[in-house]
Amino acid sequence: MKKRVSLTGDRPTGKLHLGHYVGSLKNRVVLQHEFEQYVMIADVQALTDYFDRPERITQSVKEVLADYLSVGIDPNLTTIFIQSQIPALAELTMYYMNLVSISRVERNPTVKTELAMRGFGESIPTGFVCYPISQAADITAFKGEIIPVGEDQLPMIEQTNEIVRKFNRLYNTECLKECEPYLSKSGRLIGIDGQAKASKSLNNAIFLSDEPNVIKEKVFSMYTDPDHIKVSDPGKVDGNVVFAYLDAFYDDIEEIESLKNQYRKGGLGDMKLKALLNDTLQKLLEPIREKRNSYTEDYLMDICKAGTRKANELAQQTLSEVKDAIGINFFK
Amino acid sequence: MKKRVSLTGDRPTGKLHLGHYVGSLKNRVVLQHEFEQYVMIADVQALTDYFDRPERITQSVKEVLADYLSVGIDPNLTTIFIQSQIPALAELTMYYMNLVSISRVERNPTVKTELAMRGFGESIPTGFVCYPISQAADITAFKGEIIPVGEDQLPMIEQTNEIVRKFNRLYNTECLKECEPYLSKSGRLIGIDGQAKASKSLNNAIFLSDEPNVIKEKVFSMYTDPDHIKVSDPGKVDGNVVFAYLDAFYDDIEEIESLKNQYRKGGLGDMKLKALLNDTLQKLLEPIREKRNSYTEDYLMDICKAGTRKANELAQQTLSEVKDAIGINFFK
Repeated sequence: MKKRVSLTGDRPTGKLHLGHYVGSLKNRVVLQHEFEQYVMIADVQALTDYFDRPERITQSVKEVLADYLSVGIDPNLTTIFIQSQIPALAELTMYYMNLVSISRVERNPTVKTELAMRGFGESIPTGFVCYPISQAADITAFKGEIIPVGEDQLPMIEQTNEIVRKFNRLYNTECLKECEPYLSKSGRLIGIDGQAKASKSLNNAIFLSDEPNVIKEKVFSMYTDPDHIKVSDPGKVDGNVVFAYLDAFYDDIEEIESLKNQYRKGGLGDMKLKALLNDTLQKLLEPIREKRNSYTEDYLMDICKAGTRKANELAQQTLSEVKDAIGINFFK
Repeated sequence: MKKRVSLTGDRPTGKLHLGHYVGSLKNRVVLQHEFEQYVMIADVQALTDYFDRPERITQSVKEVLADYLSVGIDPNLTTIFIQSQIPALAELTMYYMNLVSISRVERNPTVKTELAMRGFGESIPTGFVCYPISQAADITAFKGEIIPVGEDQLPMIEQTNEIVRKFNRLYNTECLKECEPYLSKSGRLIGIDGQAKASKSLNNAIFLSDEPNVIKEKVFSMYTDPDHIKVSDPGKVDGNVVFAYLDAFYDDIEEIESLKNQYRKGGLGDMKLKALLNDTLQKLLEPIREKRNSYTEDYLMDICKAGTRKANELAQQTLSEVKDAIGINFFK
């Protein structure tokens, strides 16, 4: 039986870190066996708010690609491609823009939240406001059925399906497919400073490509419990970054529980815990980093070219169906 | 010396009529000797408000093409192409959308006027609001320098040049060119019913393809002066459609002046004037209609394919320069 198609991706605005690993990458390594998986390096979308810092995008595309391969996303199972190299995505966006009112786009809850975070002020780029429509193009171009997303991205799925239904009804076709969200069970990884989210821009993340000494340094600088001064003091587990990371990366759940109990009572030092976490992360990241360092630039670009070629074929096919349905495939 | 590039075009929402002939087509036949002329059949733009009536677009593309050739737009001098067949235009639009704020787009005077005319109500399609950005893509893709427009379209030229300056400054390039409007001296042709504008939707236009009996019928139904009942009555020339058309199509200006004087005094009948106009228009339209009827569908499509191929090469070249400037030409 034909596998269902899943589409996912990342904005190439920096190297990927453990937050990405926990939140999506690990998942994709599993899902590539279950679904026909497409992973998009979303440079066009990243430009909607990085348009004035394009070098960040340019430099990050290869880094993200190397991160993908190093964690086990397998180009034989997963089609990895660069958004800007698929012209059909822009063309589909143009046709979908006619089916969504400007007030509907401006009301999109995800866009509203993200606008508040970005501080564009009075000058909100049109491209940023319209990115839900561009995402609908990404999803439908590949006939994506399963879209791994976080809760905050659900309005995007809704917008896509609205466009799909309107297009199919208006042009009397079934060429576009509705999709469904695939909500990841894994939560968000907090920052090493205790902030809600590990992120490059907050400089509180451990990158997949970090060297051993950098990992160690970051682990030993982690926020724990500021009132846990002497080893014998009772300590707090909630909000303690070391425990949050152990929860995410240490396999022996029972041992973690016992360490938490000991910490709460007193008698377990931060140094000992941090050493355990450092050990755990070094073991996780060493093979990833070694694989990552083994890739040549040519190898990475070849993988990406092959994926982009395949993605282009599928997207062009969908675009052709869309143009047929509208009735503007004049040279066919 | 290399000729400067001019870009112009029409939305394919129906056959072209005498209003188009006077307002733009006649001009293009002259300008094709002066400039490297590109003429676009703007189906993508037409879909921004005809998205729910696509058959109108589908059917009109070939009609417009036949109209072009029949009035003397020469495919050896002018590159005629279909907008939807040039993917680079959609891609350029996506990158330009990041450079224009949504409030700037919504403030565009031309868009505001057209919105009022179209009555979208609360549901204004995003594509319609964004069409000035898409027009900037059309113009810059071909490095258009001379844009024949009416006064009402000047804000479009301004928006294009804003994008050009912002793009070139931001990405430290000179790959985009500013353009200038070429304001036509010829005015707008009024409708046969005396309304301000001849248009298909008002059903008050004489089409280039109208048969002789239809032309005659339309001329003899023209609005003149309702108080000019008997031949001997004095008549009004202002607002008199027959005189407006004679002004536009009858070559002997002195004779027209003398007829106007006679009409004002009284003693010149509408029938006689209408016969003169009918004669004039039949002479103008007969060779156009004959040429028009001689084209096979294959011939028209071949012309259009060749033009579109040439247009695609140029647009792809510009897109490549744009991607180079942003830094996302990954596979180059």
